[in-house]
Parts: sequence; C-alpha cells; structure tokens
Amino acid sequence: MSKIRRIGVYTSGGDAPGMNAAIRSVVRTAIYNDIKVTGIFRGYEGMIEGDFTELVSRSVSSIIQQGGTILKSARCPEFRTPEGRKKAYENIRYAGIDALVAIGGDGTFTGAELLSNEYDVPVMCIPGTIDNDLYGTDYTLGFDTANNTVIEAIDKIKDTAASHNRLFFVEVMGRDSGCIALNAGVSGGAEAILLPEKETAIDELIAMLKTAKARNKTSTIVIVAEGNKNGGVYNVAKRVKERFDFYDTKVSILGHLQRGGSPSSFDRVLATRMGYFAVNELIKGTPSATVGVRGTQMVTTSLEEALRSKELKLDEELITIAEVMNV
Amino acid sequence: MSKIRRIGVYTSGGDAPGMNAAIRSVVRTAIYNDIKVTGIFRGYEGMIEGDFTELVSRSVSSIIQQGGTILKSARCPEFRTPEGRKKAYENIRYAGIDALVAIGGDGTFTGAELLSNEYDVPVMCIPGTIDNDLYGTDYTLGFDTANNTVIEAIDKIKDTAASHNRLFFVEVMGRDSGCIALNAGVSGGAEAILLPEKETAIDELIAMLKTAKARNKTSTIVIVAEGNKNGGVYNVAKRVKERFDFYDTKVSILGHLQRGGSPSSFDRVLATRMGYFAVNELIKGTPSATVGVRGTQMVTTSLEEALRSKELKLDEELITIAEVMNV
Amino acid sequence: MSKIRRIGVYTSGGDAPGMNAAIRSVVRTAIYNDIKVTGIFRGYEGMIEGDFTELVSRSVSSIIQQGGTILKSARCPEFRTPEGRKKAYENIRYAGIDALVAIGGDGTFTGAELLSNEYDVPVMCIPGTIDNDLYGTDYTLGFDTANNTVIEAIDKIKDTAASHNRLFFVEVMGRDSGCIALNAGVSGGAEAILLPEKETAIDELIAMLKTAKARNKTSTIVIVAEGNKNGGVYNVAKRVKERFDFYDTKVSILGHLQRGGSPSSFDRVLATRMGYFAVNELIKGTPSATVGVRGTQMVTTSLEEALRSKELKLDEELITIAEVMNV
Amino acid sequence: MSKIRRIGVYTSGGDAPGMNAAIRSVVRTAIYNDIKVTGIFRGYEGMIEGDFTELVSRSVSSIIQQGGTILKSARCPEFRTPEGRKKAYENIRYAGIDALVAIGGDGTFTGAELLSNEYDVPVMCIPGTIDNDLYGTDYTLGFDTANNTVIEAIDKIKDTAASHNRLFFVEVMGRDSGCIALNAGVSGGAEAILLPEKETAIDELIAMLKTAKARNKTSTIVIVAEGNKNGGVYNVAKRVKERFDFYDTKVSILGHLQRGGSPSSFDRVLATRMGYFAVNELIKGTPSATVGVRGTQMVTTSLEEALRSKELKLDEELITIAEVMNV
Repeated sequence: MSKIRRIGVYTSGGDAPGMNAAIRSVVRTAIYNDIKVTGIFRGYEGMIEGDFTELVSRSVSSIIQQGGTILKSARCPEFRTPEGRKKAYENIRYAGIDALVAIGGDGTFTGAELLSNEYDVPVMCIPGTIDNDLYGTDYTLGFDTANNTVIEAIDKIKDTAASHNRLFFVEVMGRDSGCIALNAGVSGGAEAILLPEKETAIDELIAMLKTAKARNKTSTIVIVAEGNKNGGVYNVAKRVKERFDFYDTKVSILGHLQRGGSPSSFDRVLATRMGYFAVNELIKGTPSATVGVRGTQMVTTSLEEALRSKELKLDEELITIAEVMNV
Repeated sequence: MSKIRRIGVYTSGGDAPGMNAAIRSVVRTAIYNDIKVTGIFRGYEGMIEGDFTELVSRSVSSIIQQGGTILKSARCPEFRTPEGRKKAYENIRYAGIDALVAIGGDGTFTGAELLSNEYDVPVMCIPGTIDNDLYGTDYTLGFDTANNTVIEAIDKIKDTAASHNRLFFVEVMGRDSGCIALNAGVSGGAEAILLPEKETAIDELIAMLKTAKARNKTSTIVIVAEGNKNGGVYNVAKRVKERFDFYDTKVSILGHLQRGGSPSSFDRVLATRMGYFAVNELIKGTPSATVGVRGTQMVTTSLEEALRSKELKLDEELITIAEVMNV
Repeated sequence: MSKIRRIGVYTSGGDAPGMNAAIRSVVRTAIYNDIKVTGIFRGYEGMIEGDFTELVSRSVSSIIQQGGTILKSARCPEFRTPEGRKKAYENIRYAGIDALVAIGGDGTFTGAELLSNEYDVPVMCIPGTIDNDLYGTDYTLGFDTANNTVIEAIDKIKDTAASHNRLFFVEVMGRDSGCIALNAGVSGGAEAILLPEKETAIDELIAMLKTAKARNKTSTIVIVAEGNKNGGVYNVAKRVKERFDFYDTKVSILGHLQRGGSPSSFDRVLATRMGYFAVNELIKGTPSATVGVRGTQMVTTSLEEALRSKELKLDEELITIAEVMNV
Repeated sequence: MSKIRRIGVYTSGGDAPGMNAAIRSVVRTAIYNDIKVTGIFRGYEGMIEGDFTELVSRSVSSIIQQGGTILKSARCPEFRTPEGRKKAYENIRYAGIDALVAIGGDGTFTGAELLSNEYDVPVMCIPGTIDNDLYGTDYTLGFDTANNTVIEAIDKIKDTAASHNRLFFVEVMGRDSGCIALNAGVSGGAEAILLPEKETAIDELIAMLKTAKARNKTSTIVIVAEGNKNGGVYNVAKRVKERFDFYDTKVSILGHLQRGGSPSSFDRVLATRMGYFAVNELIKGTPSATVGVRGTQMVTTSLEEALRSKELKLDEELITIAEVMNV
C-alpha cells in the first residue's frame, strides 16, 4: 500500500445530527497525520460534478455542536450508472484524492461499495442516520439525538395529557426500522408502540388502551413508527376512535425536526471516535469497510457483510420490557 | 364588602404552561393574607360535582416548573344551564368559598361572568392559554412558552433544511388566533406565514417561495396556523406542490406538545404576578374582572369588556416586519 | 435631513443573546429601504481601525438563532479620547456611512453620545445586555434568554436538592443590577434572593432559611446576585454555614454561560422589532436616541435621558411577591 | 432457592438522573411477576429506621422523566456498624422483604455486600452515579445525562467566547473520575482538559493555550475536573493568568446542576433495562451482584469483583483523540 496523501470526505443520504462532528474529526485526524483533506459537497452528486473544497483545521471550527452537514447532502441517480461513477472517479483522481470517508446510510454505503470495487480507491464508511438501521455498529450517528428529541416532545405531550385524560398518537421517524419508536416509547413511558417489525392488530391496540384506562392512567400515549403495518397515524387514530371513543384523540407528526438539533454528547463523542478511527484504518491500509462501535470498542465490518446481513437491529427484549412496564 | 375567608381556585378549558405557577401564587398569596384555599378539580365539572380539596402551602411545592395543571381541566356543557350553575353555587357556598380565581380562556371567563352575575360571588379571572387571544392583557399565560417550543422545533428543522434544500410546512396551534404563528414565524425566520386573520392566496404563497428560491435560501419554511384560511397543512402542501415542485416538501404537525413543557421564566413570573394580583384585588373588593399585564403594570378589565371587545390581538406591524425580513 | 444611503452597524460591550437577531433585522430593514449596510467589527475598536465589511441579506442568513455576535465585540479605551473618535469618524466618513446603529449597554451608548455630539452622524442605540439595567425600555435584549438559562440550572439543582435536603447557593450575573437574580429567583422558586439594590444581612438570610426549614421544604435555594452587598457567593455560603449548619451547603457559579445560548422567542422578536424600528427612525430623521419597548409599543428615548435617568429598573413589588411566595 | 414474594428497593449515595426510571422499572417488573415491592426511604438510614412504603404500579407513574429520586437518599455512618446492619436486617425481615435492589455507587454497593454476606438476603445492585466510576458496566446511570448537561453549558459559553476571545475555565464533577471531564471536553470541543487520572503541569497547559492562540481559535475553553491534580479551578485560572495574560479569564463552576435534570433517553432506557434485569436475576436466584451493560448485553458482576477491580474506567484512546482534535 502506498501512503495516503489526501482524503476526500462526503455526506450523503438523509442527514443526521453528528455528521458535522464526524467531518471535523476526519479533517483534524487527517491533518494531524499530515494528510490533506478535500470536502466533497452534496455526496455523489458533487463527486460527479467536481464540487470540491479544501478543508483545513479552521474549516471545521465550531461545527461539532451543529446539526445538519456543512458538506450538504443529495440523492444522485446518476451515480448508479457506470458512466456516473467513471466521472466521479476521474474527479477524485484529478483532485489527488487517495482515499474516501463516506458518512451516511445504506444508500451511501452501496455507492461506496460500487466505487471501491470498480476503482482502486479505499472507502471507509461512517454510519450516519437517525434510523439506527445499519449492521456493524451498536449505534448509528444521530440515533441518540433523535431519541432525545422525541422524548422531549413526548414529555411535553404528557403534561397536557395528564391534565385532560386524552389519547395521543405520536408519529415518529425510522423508515422501516422501529428503533426510534421502541427506544423513545420505552423512555417516554408510552402505553403502546406500533413497530414496522411487528404486526399489532388494531384489536390488540384497543385492548392495551382499555387496560391502561382500567388502571386509571392519567395519560395515554401511542407511538406510531412511520413504517408500522397499520398505515399512517391519522388512519390508526381514526380506526381506534371508531371503536374506542372514551378519549378525545389527538395527533402529532414530528417529522423532520427529528433529523435536526445539536447532537447529544453521546453522538458527538461517537462521531469523533468514528472519524478518528476511520482515518486511522485508511492509514493502516484496511480495505473498504464500515466502522462501528461494539460496546466501548471500535470495529470495522466489510461492506459486503454490512450491506447483506439480515440481522434484526431491533432489541427483542426491549419489546418485552415495553409491555412489562405497562403492568 | 365582607372579609374573604376562603378562596376557590380552578383551571378550565385547554391547559397552558404557567397554570400551575398561577395556582401556586394564588394559594400562597391567600395564605399569606390568612385566607384559606379550596382547589376545585376539573373546572366547572368539579364545581358541580363538589370535587374539592384543601390547598395549603405545601400542596403547591415544586409545581412552579411543571406544565399542565394539578387541578386538571375539563369541558362542562352542564354549566351552561342555570341548573348546573345552581348546583355549582351550592357546592361553593357549602364549602365556605367567598370568592373565586378562575384560570383559563374565554370559555372559562364566560362561565365566570354567568356565575358572578347570577350569584353573589366575585370571580377574578387569570388569562391562561397559549393562543394569546384574550383581551385585557399584552400576554396570556403559556404564550411565551409555546413560542419557545415552536422555535426549538423550527430551529431543528432548519438544520436539516439547510442540508437538503427542502420546503417545510409546519402546522402550529392557536385556533382562530395567529399570534403563535406570527411570533414563531418571525423568531424562526420563516419564509412565509399563513395566518387566520389574513387571507394569503396559494398564488401569493408560491410567489414568496419563488422569491426565496431566487435568493438561494438554504432553507425554506412555511408556518401554517391551524386556523388559516387555506385549510389543513397537508392540503396547503399539496396545492403548493402541484404548481411549484422545485423542492421536496415535508410536513410537521406539532400538535399538543405546544401546550406542554416547563413554563419559561417569563410565564412563571407573569403567572406569579397574576396570582398575587388576583388575590389582592379580591381582598380589595374589586368586582369580578380579568387581570392582565400592560407593559410592566398589572391591570384589571371588566368581564363585560374583556369578553366583548373586538380588538385585534395580532400585531399588524409584525406582519409587515415578517415580510421585510424576507427581503 | 439628507437621505441615508449607508448605515453602519456594530455591537459593543458584553455580548447578549439576540444581538445577531438585531444585526439581521438592521441589515434587512436597511436593504428593504435601498440602504446599504456596513458591518463594523469589534465595536469602537474596529471603528477606529477601519475593520469594516459589506453586509448583504445573505450575510445574515441563519444567524437569528445564534448566541454571541457575528460582528464580535471589544472594549476600547482609545475611543474615550477625542483623537480616537476623530479616527473613527474619518473611517466612517470614508466608508460612506451616513448613520449608525449601535447594539450594546451603557458604555456603548456613552460612546454613541460622544460621537453623535461631536460629529454630524445620527446613532440609533439598541439596548443589548442580559443585565436589563438600561433606562428607556421594559426589557433589554438577552435578559429573557438569560432568565431561562438560569431557571434551567435552578430546576436541575432542585431535583437533587429535593433528594437530599441540601442548601444551595447559586451565583448569577447582572453586575450592579438584581433583575436576573430577582426574576430567576421568583421563577425558580428560590427561598431567598440576595440583590445588589437591597441590603440583606446574613442574620436576616439565616432567619429565612430557618423558616424554610420549619416548613419542611425539600429544597432550599439561595440566589446570590454577583453584585450583592455580602460579597462573593463562597463568602456568603461560609458565613451562613458558620451559624446554620443543618444542611450540607453547595455552590454553583453559572458565569458566562448566562451570556450565551440561542435567544428565546421573546428576544428574537424583540431584536427584530428593535432593528426594524431603529432603521426606520434613522430614515425618518430622528436624532440620536435609544430604542426600547414599552408594553407592546416601540419608543425612542434621547441618549441624554437614557444615560442620566436614575429610575430604578428593579420591580419593587416583585421583591414583595418573592417574599410572599415563601409563606 | 425459595420463591421471592417481596422486594425492597432503595437509592443511596449521591443521586443521579435515571434513578427514578430504575425504581419504576423494578416496581413494575416485580409486580408483573407477582412480587410485591417495598420502597425504602433514604437508603441505609431508612432501612435502619424502618422508613418503608408500599409501592404499587401507580406509585411510580410519571416519574420516568424526573431527575432526583422519589425514595430520597442519605449517607448513613451507622450502617457501617454491625449493630446498624442488624437493625436494618430485622426491619427488612419484619417487612417480609426477601431480596433487595440497591441503586447507587460504590458506597451503596459496599453496604450491600456487607448486608448480603452477614445475612441471607440477596442484593442486586444497579450502578447509579453521574461519575461513571463503577466497574462492571460500560455506562452508569446518569452519566449520559450529565454529559449532555455539561455540553449545553459549554455550548453557551462558546457563543460568548467566540465574540470576545476569552479564556474560560469550566469546573465539572466526577470526584476522582475524569469520565465527565473527558467526554464533555471532547464533545464540547475544549482546548484542554485537566483530569484526575493524569498529571498536566501548568506549563503544559500554557503551552496548549499558546498553540490554540497561534491557530487563532475564536474560543478557548479548559475543562477542569473537580478531582484534577492542580487544585480548584480558581487556583488553576490564577496560575495560568500569572504567566499567560493574553486573554481575559473567566470561571464557571457548574456544581450540583450536573446531578439533576430530566434523564436522557439513553439513561431512561438503560435504567429500565437494568431494573428489569435486576429483578429477573433475583427471581432466577442469582447471588448478590451488580448489573451492568456491556455493548448491548446486560451482564452481572459479583460484588467482590465489582468493588475490588482496579480497571481504569477512563478511555485512554479518547485522551489521545482529545489532543488530536486540537491540531
């Protein structure tokens, strides 16, 4: 392996709190090791267009606490074509980039795998998504912050729920993953959680709500994952209402505010460690991979394994615990 | 006027942050003046049912920072009947209550006026609603907290908006009042605000968005008051999308989380001052009225005037300012 | 009066949340009125050194939510000399600046008055300080945010105080003003507040704490204004401890974190209104003055009056209320 | 092993966010398994005095989001005597308690070990302390929340630091552990961190600050762990000031606010899992132990090992990373 002289870094796909902290760490770790850094704007789109900028230590000052990504993000259908990737590679080469750090989710990793397989450029991938749906790490960047955002909302709703005996349906993000719904449901003390990974019939949900009512709960909150199997939150609320109208029902759809906000300490430390680790793995000559945390240890997982594993991310026992807590 | 020996306090209608702080202040001011206090649960419903409790200084410990209302709240159709009010009055009389402090919105005040006109019991009303739609005060309790809640959400959305060039529609509360929408829109730096008090054609909205796009704004946010004249937020988003699809459009419906949360310092101080002032006005023998703040001064307004004034609460100049800020 | 073509804007003295929002409003209101804007860095220091920058609408994008000031701030002894002010004026003139908007506290206003009296340049002053110690306005920029910051700290301390029966001394800012201490003390439910404006003997303080103990208060918190008459917080704690050692005593010194943070909605709206109003007053030809809010109305006050008034800012009745709340 | 019919739960030592969430989980998991629960107030003190209460599902409603501990906490020298423990055991026995769950730090665990060795009562210990200084778990309850509290303070200080080029010293908690200082220092982007576990000479610190100044850093923040080897924060600040007075130096002492606040989602989930796991381990007949999390798995560690291990908790690599980030 030849010495790396310049690393390119980019963010791609949905943004997540902690991406900026990861960019900062990549830049500073590289500079510390006498490696220069090119920032690539708007992910693969900017790679194809050559939308690059030099990043020095000062470029990443005071971004560790900012949500979003200073490199911006975009979807890029053109990168799915060999022609697109050829253009991207030529730009990378022309800019003198020897290795890449990609921050994003599975779409980002898929692009990285294609590029890495077709051209001789190692890509170290950092899992950045609030959904926590990536294999190879206990936690993805942004997941912790998103959970805190959701429980702040739930805590506020509970204040008013307690005053009025209302039934609240709160839709949370996560695409096909129920990680946010489950974690925020447990930490918010929700009476029921509708997950994408688990069928919960409306009958079953109504039974839960009746049990909660029988216990004279002062607040009743149902967390609805956007990818749950009963459809949108309004549909769920309507179907419940038709058959259980004891409560006034109210709906909140948190939406994209879950993707923003200043990252939590957990996400900032994780991002800093991942950026540091990713650059050091590139220096060591590790082939393209994703980085992750297992317990307190940093690990790499091959892109092949990370992208094709069928491991269920969702903590099965936590589903049980959520039910037990509603005794 | 005879000396007041016991005050009854209740919250009614939609709850608002600061109600607990107001209850605390009423209780402690009364006790300081050797007046006993009865807490009436669930507003007029509890008054009719005699759902009362003795409140001492310790009863209101550590509630100043809590959202919701420890006395709970409810709607009560029966109180609109003379029979209902008769029952309520008999319960009040039986409990030895000489005067009342009512915390809530216009429904609460209307009930207070009826009771006060029909029976010889003075009622001092404290404006508690996030909507800021009551006459006789610059600010209602909870409005400040709700504005802070909304801008925290908007700030988070802007993080992700800045990363992706998206168009966000955020629905906020306020019923027929645009106060929250306007204040949060100005303080969140929104590109457009749809108010109940002002017709904004979809054409006009699209023109604003095109202007914003022409200025290369990195984030575009439209605040939609729930009572605006273009219908629900999804409808607005859809109509915009049909004719201006440059952006990906996303929707957040904040819902009842706007009613909860720990009250801001402003709301806690205002609540404490209002509770103190309300009890002192009752002691002085002031007839039934609402209390309010004008500048830094506390004032009373007769229920007659407060309930029938047609003054527009919304700050017209702030609408102009919101437009100027999007230059 | 001749038409204004270019306004210079600067921040000076201690920074405060809302300064950026005010800068943004000044810039955009000016541009809306076809007036160009020069940003002057580091207050009077930058004015003397000619450290200027052109500000356009984009220059102030996404700063409304940021604490601090993008124009930075500094103290400048040289501006107190006629030579310093001559240099400053020459730089202003050379840059084509016809009028100034100054954001800061009384030192800032004093400089503005000197400049305005000696040279023919109108200066509109925006009161920006967390201390709320300026005449001519109900509220200064940053005061509301600082109060919220302090009560978040107090709320957290109360959690742990309630668990252990401890006595906490919390030192808050405000220089010679007790506004933050009083407001945060009332909204934090403190058992005692030591103010700069009011002598509270240690004897008196201990009597208060004994009363609180007798009421079995689960938490006891004393707010100590940095300018109080009993010296630093450690000294106060020590003197109390010597004669009343029932509790474990603990100290927090919040320090400069009270000056930072994202401004509250209240401060953002106030800053936006003040910036808009300041520029419009300059356009109308109003002579040098400070702007302020009285109730819901914007007002101007001559610098002469604002700087020499002896009005007590502190709300006397609120001191009484603070005592009544500890019944 | 005989079936457990009643579990006693208590909190002891310094309180930490998440203790209430753990109590709630213990209570509900027990009830779910038809086990009754006794709440023991004020730790070992209440155990000796027989200050007990019955806890049912409703007793722990709406406490998951609250800081502090509803069971209160105290230090208890008497429990260090055999007589004290005898009294405690007799009370436990009289109340029909078969097993205990203790929530706290090493003092709590030491008491549990003594009781468990001398009498036949299994104790399952849950690590609850913000200091993260316990063996047998990756994270203790409250550590994550405390880190978030500290970085919110640092973020605010950075706003004002950036405006003025000041040097801030921020003292954080942790007793002999530098975990909070290191984590919050990394996530707050501090320029230097003084740890208890590592000698940093004032010379070395000044060299770091000069390097930071040479890089034109807009803010310079030094995190000082309360247990660091250079003495109190004022002493450190004074010694730096004497030899490096380029900056105005300012001090914040966060103090006990770091122990309070609503627990983060991470701490609530961890507390819920630990409580659930602790009760289930008791049911399974596991001898007295501490519970902990390793990666995503719950584990037990014998009290013997947990109390006598000399493992360094502090992440050595994170110290290196902190330095690299200041390149």
